[in-house]
Amino acid sequence: MKMAFILYDDLTVLDFVGFYDAVTRLKAMGFLPGLEWTVCARTPQVRDGAGLRLQADAVPSSLEGFDLIFLPGGMGSRGLRKDQDFVGWLRTARPCPLKVSVCTGSLLLGAAGFLEGKTATTHPSAYDLLAEYTPKTTRERLVDEGDVITGGGVSTSIDLGLYLCERLAGAQARDQIARQMDYPYRAKPPLRPGRAV
Amino acid sequence: MKMAFILYDDLTVLDFVGFYDAVTRLKAMGFLPGLEWTVCARTPQVRDGAGLRLQADAVPSSLEGFDLIFLPGGMGSRGLRKDQDFVGWLRTARPCPLKVSVCTGSLLLGAAGFLEGKTATTHPSAYDLLAEYTPKTTRERLVDEGDVITGGGVSTSIDLGLYLCERLAGAQARDQIARQMDYPYRAKPPLRPGRAV
Repeated sequence: MKMAFILYDDLTVLDFVGFYDAVTRLKAMGFLPGLEWTVCARTPQVRDGAGLRLQADAVPSSLEGFDLIFLPGGMGSRGLRKDQDFVGWLRTARPCPLKVSVCTGSLLLGAAGFLEGKTATTHPSAYDLLAEYTPKTTRERLVDEGDVITGGGVSTSIDLGLYLCERLAGAQARDQIARQMDYPYRAKPPLRPGRAV
Repeated sequence: MKMAFILYDDLTVLDFVGFYDAVTRLKAMGFLPGLEWTVCARTPQVRDGAGLRLQADAVPSSLEGFDLIFLPGGMGSRGLRKDQDFVGWLRTARPCPLKVSVCTGSLLLGAAGFLEGKTATTHPSAYDLLAEYTPKTTRERLVDEGDVITGGGVSTSIDLGLYLCERLAGAQARDQIARQMDYPYRAKPPLRPGRAV
């Protein structure tokens, strides 16, 4: 399984790192030995909203070929959702079977056309912006639409990462990873609009 | 107030970023407008335990002059606590009035001599290693000794960051920052060994 973590200037780095920490442990702890990931951006280096500089592993012209793309949120998403070059690049991820966002990363999924017909969530301050892309916004912390998973604001990244660990490798993997992360909290299970309640 | 976030190869980046996200909001949200921080390391770039590359803002020869130093944990701490060059560099932080660690960052505080006489905590897998530096280890998630604050493993970084927000700027600041981080959880208050229960 190949994951692309997508970074951009003025992202909120915790949106990325909470997810990254949980899911990369799937490999480090032996649950998914074949897991690979690439930190992708449009530039070799990005700067988070508070100034931290991070290096991309790759500046790929296309995101085709990844099994999962992950989009963090941050103030940069507000402008990028209107940036035709960036949005066009995101659209190259259309064939990727799983698209995941946390916080205002969902605005970028929406701008790329990946939220059509989907229920989705975002940072509590951005429900109105998200409604530009789908009428089915929700205040749930986690929403799993099968091929699209969205999460709430910033720190939701850990809950979302642990949920993905469970979806990919089972509840026992999730619990062991949470223990290694010393994370005693547990979000309620995601809304799954496609399933009967 | 000037903070130094200390990075090193094979750190666990969530140990750093959970704390960084919370405390840098003290400035972004107007609670401590004069807050400054510097990402410090011994090399211009470091790599976290899962491969993410981060840039330092500075490679200072001394840590004197900072009001707070913060040490994340990670596998790299196991070797660095025996590295006389690195430990000697940490010792230049002796005059800093507040020393903070999460996870196995406390082993580095210990190696630098900053835990003498102090109660301290660490990642649950490292209590035995921490006992090399202080007989007063505890399984508490947060310990505030006044001039030294230690936290438990990895994800404790968010709880520790929010606790520091409260200590520096009050409960209302803490609550507003937690809301902006969309963090619904709350760790129990830290152990404060110097105070009567």
